[in-house]
Amino acid sequence: MRLATLRDGTKDGRLVVVSADGTACAPAPVKTLQEALERWDEVAPQLAAATNFPEPLDASQLMAPLPRAWQWLDGSVYSSHGALMDKVLGVDKPPVSWPLMYQGVSDKFYGPTDDVRMPDEALQIDFEGEFGVIVDAVPMGTSAEDCKQHIRLVVQINDWSLRALAGPEMKSGFGWVQAKPPCTMAPFAITPDELGDEWRDGRCCADLLVDWNGKRFGAANGEPMGYGFHELVAHAARTRDLVAGTVIGSGTVSNENFRECGSSCIAERRGIEIVDEGAPKTDFMKFGDTVRMQGTLRDGRAPFGAIEARVVKA
Amino acid sequence: MRLATLRDGTKDGRLVVVSADGTACAPAPVKTLQEALERWDEVAPQLAAATNFPEPLDASQLMAPLPRAWQWLDGSVYSSHGALMDKVLGVDKPPVSWPLMYQGVSDKFYGPTDDVRMPDEALQIDFEGEFGVIVDAVPMGTSAEDCKQHIRLVVQINDWSLRALAGPEMKSGFGWVQAKPPCTMAPFAITPDELGDEWRDGRCCADLLVDWNGKRFGAANGEPMGYGFHELVAHAARTRDLVAGTVIGSGTVSNENFRECGSSCIAERRGIEIVDEGAPKTDFMKFGDTVRMQGTLRDGRAPFGAIEARVVKA
Repeated sequence: MRLATLRDGTKDGRLVVVSADGTACAPAPVKTLQEALERWDEVAPQLAAATNFPEPLDASQLMAPLPRAWQWLDGSVYSSHGALMDKVLGVDKPPVSWPLMYQGVSDKFYGPTDDVRMPDEALQIDFEGEFGVIVDAVPMGTSAEDCKQHIRLVVQINDWSLRALAGPEMKSGFGWVQAKPPCTMAPFAITPDELGDEWRDGRCCADLLVDWNGKRFGAANGEPMGYGFHELVAHAARTRDLVAGTVIGSGTVSNENFRECGSSCIAERRGIEIVDEGAPKTDFMKFGDTVRMQGTLRDGRAPFGAIEARVVKA
Repeated sequence: MRLATLRDGTKDGRLVVVSADGTACAPAPVKTLQEALERWDEVAPQLAAATNFPEPLDASQLMAPLPRAWQWLDGSVYSSHGALMDKVLGVDKPPVSWPLMYQGVSDKFYGPTDDVRMPDEALQIDFEGEFGVIVDAVPMGTSAEDCKQHIRLVVQINDWSLRALAGPEMKSGFGWVQAKPPCTMAPFAITPDELGDEWRDGRCCADLLVDWNGKRFGAANGEPMGYGFHELVAHAARTRDLVAGTVIGSGTVSNENFRECGSSCIAERRGIEIVDEGAPKTDFMKFGDTVRMQGTLRDGRAPFGAIEARVVKA
């Protein structure tokens, strides 16, 4: 099942069920995705029952499938990414025995083709291609095994980052506020079964195709997460109840063979350049730059649709 | 003007205007505080016009004045607190030229007398007495001076902390997730004018009386913030629009003469013990412990009401 949210003038939009070919949609029995997540056991079967898709899907009207959330917790669990990032940011942090995670702004997720407003190119504007999950209500202390059943939807996210601010904020120990403006979401939130056997051990094993200004930049696969999403959910729920609609991200998708498959963010490529050439040479994004991101299955299908965003001056 | 929210079975409760003596209330023209904040210029005069308070205020029915928020950003801007905390947590972090701030869980604020659920005493349960502000919508890039007018309400908060997790999470550079369960709010959100001349330069200059298990623990004054709230708001808004209803905290209220006035959290007292006696001797909270916090003006008035919370096993 694939779900999308259409603009209707409200902050939460109008939930629709999307046809298998992604060209049409059916109205949902509840108004918003948030509402569906709060009553998932009751609402999901009604959503899944849609067989008639009377409404052409107008791509220009797509919001983020969840246009705002009560909570957004982003992990960073690809080890090949972490090592390079520490080099780029000049951070020397101890190895930890838990999944790295921070809480980010969640009152707004940009829609897939929304222009993304940034205050200043000098802040080193970067994209970060990720996969994420959306859970229903998860009680505090739920085990990782039990968290598997709370993962209701899988999403694809661009976690925009301002690298000039990221290193200094990390060194303060308080984590990121200014370095992390709102994220963009790809059009469709999907149930894990849409991924077939490319949903494995709580991981979205799709390739994440990233194009920067129309040129292929990365095609890393989502599989090698150091922790599965169910483990990220359990980590988040250790000392708090997770509200229905909590979004949890993987962190930048990255593979050990990054020299071949490319990267899902600019900072990682700069890290490779530092290792290989002694200094970074790839610059960050400029106003007007575009990035396209598309999670793509072995058979070529793109179940999340694509993010196609442009950076503009705020 | 003082505002409170009463239980009505919904997550956002029912907004009321509270009488000057705090014993009665009047219905509000909008259902929730969130709604009022989204249309503050229009709604605030209607709230302020209440002169008849027909309903006795039932203290047992008080929720947090804002029972959930789209965003909670907590500063840490009392320098006497920061220095002691670094000692306690074993953190060696660089001095920074901006206000320290992290984003915390905001989908739930405990009401003033709600029992607070914690998973394990071994996680070193601590209270942190703070003041905070609630803003209306603040556009990205708003100056500190202009942020003054966006501060619509002042609140009093207990930012519960799990100290065994706080140091390790800080050292990771990602900031706190597990170390920061939901906060408690005192009953009344007040307009700054309620503080008279004890609202100065964007600071709430009230004493914060803290009693742990019925015994006075601290009475620090809110004034010596290293940054005013308007500067915290501007810091938060540098790279994001702040949604109406964003709550911004001061961090633990602390004074340089902490040996005389006491502390607003246990960890700070332990820091003093480390400095003075070589080792901490005050233990953290146990299940069943209570903490009372009351912001108190020179003339003895307590405009926020009081937090009276008990820690219980989740």
